[in-house]
Amino acid sequence: MYDDYRKDVIEDSVPKMQNDYGSAGAVAMVQEDGQLVTRNFLTGVVEKWEDMPGTEGYRKFIQKNQGCFFCPTNCKQIVKPVKKNGVELEGIYGAPEFDGAVALGPNCGITDTPVILKAYELCNSYSLDPTSLGATVSFAMECFERGIISEKDTNGLKLNFGNKEVLLKVIELIAQRSGIGDILADGSYRAAKVFGKEAEKFAIQSKKKELAMHDPRAKASLGLGYAVSPIGPDFAVIEHDSDFNFSAPQKFIDEAGPVGIYERLPAESLSDKKVRMLYNLQLFWSSLEVICGCIFALAPVRYMKIRHLVEAIRAITGLETSLWELMKLGEKRLNMFRVFNLREGFTFEDDILPDRMFQPIQSGPRKGQKLDKDEFNKARSLYYEMMGWNDRGIPGKGKLSELDLGWIEEYLPTENE
Amino acid sequence: MYDDYRKDVIEDSVPKMQNDYGSAGAVAMVQEDGQLVTRNFLTGVVEKWEDMPGTEGYRKFIQKNQGCFFCPTNCKQIVKPVKKNGVELEGIYGAPEFDGAVALGPNCGITDTPVILKAYELCNSYSLDPTSLGATVSFAMECFERGIISEKDTNGLKLNFGNKEVLLKVIELIAQRSGIGDILADGSYRAAKVFGKEAEKFAIQSKKKELAMHDPRAKASLGLGYAVSPIGPDFAVIEHDSDFNFSAPQKFIDEAGPVGIYERLPAESLSDKKVRMLYNLQLFWSSLEVICGCIFALAPVRYMKIRHLVEAIRAITGLETSLWELMKLGEKRLNMFRVFNLREGFTFEDDILPDRMFQPIQSGPRKGQKLDKDEFNKARSLYYEMMGWNDRGIPGKGKLSELDLGWIEEYLPTENE
Repeated sequence: MYDDYRKDVIEDSVPKMQNDYGSAGAVAMVQEDGQLVTRNFLTGVVEKWEDMPGTEGYRKFIQKNQGCFFCPTNCKQIVKPVKKNGVELEGIYGAPEFDGAVALGPNCGITDTPVILKAYELCNSYSLDPTSLGATVSFAMECFERGIISEKDTNGLKLNFGNKEVLLKVIELIAQRSGIGDILADGSYRAAKVFGKEAEKFAIQSKKKELAMHDPRAKASLGLGYAVSPIGPDFAVIEHDSDFNFSAPQKFIDEAGPVGIYERLPAESLSDKKVRMLYNLQLFWSSLEVICGCIFALAPVRYMKIRHLVEAIRAITGLETSLWELMKLGEKRLNMFRVFNLREGFTFEDDILPDRMFQPIQSGPRKGQKLDKDEFNKARSLYYEMMGWNDRGIPGKGKLSELDLGWIEEYLPTENE
Repeated sequence: MYDDYRKDVIEDSVPKMQNDYGSAGAVAMVQEDGQLVTRNFLTGVVEKWEDMPGTEGYRKFIQKNQGCFFCPTNCKQIVKPVKKNGVELEGIYGAPEFDGAVALGPNCGITDTPVILKAYELCNSYSLDPTSLGATVSFAMECFERGIISEKDTNGLKLNFGNKEVLLKVIELIAQRSGIGDILADGSYRAAKVFGKEAEKFAIQSKKKELAMHDPRAKASLGLGYAVSPIGPDFAVIEHDSDFNFSAPQKFIDEAGPVGIYERLPAESLSDKKVRMLYNLQLFWSSLEVICGCIFALAPVRYMKIRHLVEAIRAITGLETSLWELMKLGEKRLNMFRVFNLREGFTFEDDILPDRMFQPIQSGPRKGQKLDKDEFNKARSLYYEMMGWNDRGIPGKGKLSELDLGWIEEYLPTENE
């Protein structure tokens, strides 16, 4: 049965792509679609990228797959020890995930695959998050190009977009908390406070955490998901809008029925129906976090059907269970996070997207696309209401009691705080 | 497989009882427990009832089972042509369901099994609802005993509790809309308007429909369910409180996990947790109405597991589905009903229980038990909030949008109405 399953998985389009290239395999696709996060979210397309992940040329850097134990998708890969373009890869670290490849690559204006792999290797060797790091460096690059900081601040480093040597150098400085690295080590939000002037406008963050490398202007529900996510913007908040738009495979729509999604909707809109899509998908993905279910294994987009998940939980625990129960666990998790954040001083005013998301993508097939601020605020209010929260994002007694979280109410801020 | 299934079903306690006696088999159980609706809800126990449903003696009135096609529970039964206690049963009609047996029996102070079967037969032959009819007659009996109406109004009929001949006579009069029957044919609420004086206090109704024959003072969530039910009080609003109290079989608790019920709770309380139990059970039972699923076949209390239901829907429709989807269909149904009722002029002030539920049961093991009015109002408010409705029971945009019912909003009353 496992062999059949494995075969089916490998023949399924998304797992096959992930088996071939890791999650970074989607890079070629989003470049084609004009939503490749480039130069600190200024644009959505790069001019040229040799051996881009998701193209055949990229495979020469891959030594072998080494996924999770017994996983048929087996999407994790080990980089080859290659010497090229002035860098030498050790060949013992993992190949980048999508977000890391984009954050360290096009987002910093860099499209040199060996350099990106080296930067990723450095992040791994220092245990630094490549997404936040890449996005913080791209922020610093934009500040440098705009004259907010200068070589005086960088100790002579020319921190321009596309400067490969400087990227690798800055990673070392951040790890050592040395010079400009000491400031950037705290992330873009805090670095902007140090840089002053208009720097804050170029910190592409929410809740002081850098955005993941999927552009909300092309995936609007995901964007709202970034804003309301209790852990800050993350690519794994929900299955992405583009998987349910008008060009998505029919399989994705069919398999999304169990979580209440029935119709294709435009990826770029924030209509009421898109907020509903966020609500349903977020509960499901949150439930996967609760049970440590892998988003790269499961329907609607991946091979394992949602009912197989329910059956697996039943088999493992011996308990009768259902998707209702799992979704409610996911919702419970989101509400517990919410109350935790509120207790720690977060408010609905932290559920934001950076201004750049309301400014047009500068070039490529999606040139001119942007989110509308009023539409975003309206969608956020509707999301709160769907969650059973008030207009300031505070969970109501009804929702907490429904989730059997009555005991948590005492941690809520009082209305006058 | 079907044979195994059938065998298991018949060995399961509740279906076995229903196979032996029909749903009326529970009468003996509730008498034992002191919650047998007696004399217009004045008390919860009768003194003596020969051949009570649920006891061996009752079986001599049963000719055979004749359930729904291929149903293994097979709970419907045909009455024998018996001549006894002055009545002659035709032997072609069905035996009473629980509610009918109680409404026409102890609720009217009558514990003569052949007479009750005859009364039920008359209701069936005239296509009258035995529950509403029995409860309307019991209301009239109480009014008669209290002197609100007299023999002048009844054309000489002595409409006392326990008057068997008069019960049978009144059914005929109601069917013919003749004399007192013409007034009672409109149900207890409207009859009370005609009788005047304090009559309204003795009409045990909500939304102008007579309560089902399960006492809210012994099943508090069900009571709240009666009050908020869009179709008025009905025994099939939810699986009853007593199935999840401290003496319920462990199987019921285990099988309720899929709908989010994990702990035993006192049947008589209206705590926040009991409101939550109502919410979860009501969504599930509402989903059964949507798909025409039989409450007498399904878990948590009956044999067919909830996951079997999901599998059956999947097999029948060919669609991937889940309990999440079914529960949400159930919730959608409740919200559509709600908006319909609001449009037709109902308000939250119609979501009530009659005063008698806040007065003590007069005798038996449950003597003194009653609901608390403040607790009830608090529980109703919490229920509204769980449903995503405002404090006047009006569904919010968040809930309607979440259920993909955005289009229904225009039918809501405006805030000033």
